[in-house]
Amino acid sequence: MAGEFDLIRDYFRDATAQREDVVLGVGDDCALLEVPAGKQLAVSMDTLVVGRHFVADVDPQSLGYKALAVNLSDLAAMGATPAWATLSVTLPDADADWIKRFMAGFIELAKKHQLTLVGGDTTRGPLSITLQVHGFVEPSNSMRRNAACVGDLIYVSGQLGDAGLALLAQQGLYVKQGSLASLKQRLDRPEPRIELGLIAAMHSRCAIDLSDGLGSDLGHICEESDVGALIYLDKLPMSNAVAEYVTESGDWSLPLSAGDDYELCMTVPAQHQAAFEAAMQQQDVPVTWIGMIEQGEQVRAMSPNGDVDAYVARGYDHFKN
Amino acid sequence: MAGEFDLIRDYFRDATAQREDVVLGVGDDCALLEVPAGKQLAVSMDTLVVGRHFVADVDPQSLGYKALAVNLSDLAAMGATPAWATLSVTLPDADADWIKRFMAGFIELAKKHQLTLVGGDTTRGPLSITLQVHGFVEPSNSMRRNAACVGDLIYVSGQLGDAGLALLAQQGLYVKQGSLASLKQRLDRPEPRIELGLIAAMHSRCAIDLSDGLGSDLGHICEESDVGALIYLDKLPMSNAVAEYVTESGDWSLPLSAGDDYELCMTVPAQHQAAFEAAMQQQDVPVTWIGMIEQGEQVRAMSPNGDVDAYVARGYDHFKN
Repeated sequence: MAGEFDLIRDYFRDATAQREDVVLGVGDDCALLEVPAGKQLAVSMDTLVVGRHFVADVDPQSLGYKALAVNLSDLAAMGATPAWATLSVTLPDADADWIKRFMAGFIELAKKHQLTLVGGDTTRGPLSITLQVHGFVEPSNSMRRNAACVGDLIYVSGQLGDAGLALLAQQGLYVKQGSLASLKQRLDRPEPRIELGLIAAMHSRCAIDLSDGLGSDLGHICEESDVGALIYLDKLPMSNAVAEYVTESGDWSLPLSAGDDYELCMTVPAQHQAAFEAAMQQQDVPVTWIGMIEQGEQVRAMSPNGDVDAYVARGYDHFKN
Repeated sequence: MAGEFDLIRDYFRDATAQREDVVLGVGDDCALLEVPAGKQLAVSMDTLVVGRHFVADVDPQSLGYKALAVNLSDLAAMGATPAWATLSVTLPDADADWIKRFMAGFIELAKKHQLTLVGGDTTRGPLSITLQVHGFVEPSNSMRRNAACVGDLIYVSGQLGDAGLALLAQQGLYVKQGSLASLKQRLDRPEPRIELGLIAAMHSRCAIDLSDGLGSDLGHICEESDVGALIYLDKLPMSNAVAEYVTESGDWSLPLSAGDDYELCMTVPAQHQAAFEAAMQQQDVPVTWIGMIEQGEQVRAMSPNGDVDAYVARGYDHFKN
C-alpha cells in the first residue's frame, strides 16, 4: 500500500533465522515473543549516527554487519544467548538498494547466531541506525559490571589494539608494510564473543565488552563495583603489528584506549581461576590474564619497568570533544 | 567519568516506576528482565525524527510524553500490559536541560502505566528519538491485524479527526472560535487506550491503533487478513468541532485520513457483539460501531446518501511525498 511498508515487507520480513519462540514477527503493531521458562531476558539498544559512528559513504553491507556485531557483543558480555533483534533505519531517501545491502551484512551475522529480526521502523531523515538485541541468560550466570571483588583476577579475550591500528592506517596516520588488511577486518567485522561469554559466565560474575577501550571500560567495572584495578602492560595480548607499534612509539594507547576491539574483559574470583582457565583453553580465541582487582577506585597500569600510573581516560566519549 | 554516561545516570536511572521484574536496569551492558510465566512478550519500536515527526523547537516535555504515548498505543492495540521501555536519544549537543524536560514528559506517562525505563543510548547527532516498549499479553488474548473475518463488526474508540483538526488550526489553515485548545490537547497528548485494549482483547481477535488514519490503518487489517471493509460515514464518531468542519466543507478527510488520533480500531465476531458492547460500556471512553468486514480487499465507505466508494489512501507515508 505504501512505500514505507513495502520496504519493511521486502527486506525485514522473514529475512533472518526462523525461531519457534517468535509467535508474531515483523508487520503488526507489536511482535509477540516467548522467553523460555526460567530464563531472564537480556536487552541492549545502540544507536549509530552518520558522521559520528560511520562515514556517509560507508559500505552498507559492512555497516549492517557491524551494527549487529557491536550489539551482540553486549549480549556476550552479559553471558546471554542471542534470540531476537529490532531495527530502526532512518534514511535520507527510500533507497531500496542501500537497505538490501545493509540487510545482507545484517543477515549474514544474524543467521550465524540464530537471531531473528522481529520488528522495527523505517523513516526518512539523516542516516542513522538504532538496533536492540534480545537474548536469554541463566539467572545464576549473568555477568554484571557491579560484581567485581578485591582479589579477583582480570582477563581479556583476543588481542587488543588491532582495530585502533587499522583506524590509524585508514586515516593515513600509520603506514607499514604487511598485514594491515587483516587488521582492517578486525575493525570492520568484529566477532562478538558469544560462545566465549556463555562459557565464561559459568565461572565469572563480572564482565564488560571493550567498545571504548580497556582503560575506560575496566573503569566502568571499577566504578560500578566500587573497586580499583591494576593491570600489567607487559601482559596485554597484542598482535605482532600492535606490539611493534608500541615498541617503536612507546605509546600504549592502542591496547589501552583505542576501543572498537569488542573483546571481553572478565573478572574471576581466585578460587575459580583453575576452572575458568581450563574452560577458556577449550575456546577458539585466547584468553589472557592481565591484572588484579584491588582496593581503590582507579584503573592503574604497571609498565614493564615497574612504574605504576593511574590510567587517564582517553576513550571515546560522544559528548566530550 | 564521561559526559555521555553522566547524562544517562542523571536522567535515565531510577527515573520511572520501580518494578520487581527488572532484575538489572540502566547502566550495564544489558538490562535483565523477567517475563511472567505463561505470558508472551509484546515489543514495538518507533523512531521520531526532527523535521518529519516534530519541529526543531518542539517543547521537549510534550515530545517526551508523545513519544511514549504513541508507542504505548501499539501495546494497547495488541491487548498488552505495559512493562518496560528502552530509549535512545540523539541530540545535537549534550543539553542537560533538554533531556531533563524531555524526561519530565516521559516520566509522567510512564508512571501512570507502571512502566520502567530499563536501558538505551545517548549520542550526538541530528535530533531524533527511538523508543521501544515491552509489554505482556495473555497468549489467548492478543489482537492481530491478520485475524479479521468476513462478517466481523468494526468498532473504533473515542472520536476521530480531532488531532487532524488541531493540526489544521496550528498551521493556520482552519480558523474557528471556540474549543481548539482542547483539540490541541488531543494532538499533543494522545491517551494510549491501554485499559480499553486489555478489556477488548477478551472479545476481539483483531485490532490496530489509528496512527495514520482510519482508512489507511483499517486497510492494513484488510491486507493482512485478506478481507475488505465497509464503513458508514454517518456512524463515524466525531467531536462537534470536527462534525461542523465536515458539514461545512463536505470533506471527510479529517475522520478518515488525518491520523494522529491513536484511538483503537477493533473487529469483533457477531457472536461476541453483545459481550463486547457490554464490556465497552464500562469503559471511560466511548466505543462506536462503524461498519462490517466483508469479502474483498478494499476499504469502502458509504456516504450518508448511500453512495459507496473505495477509500483512496491519503494517509501519511514517510517515503512517499
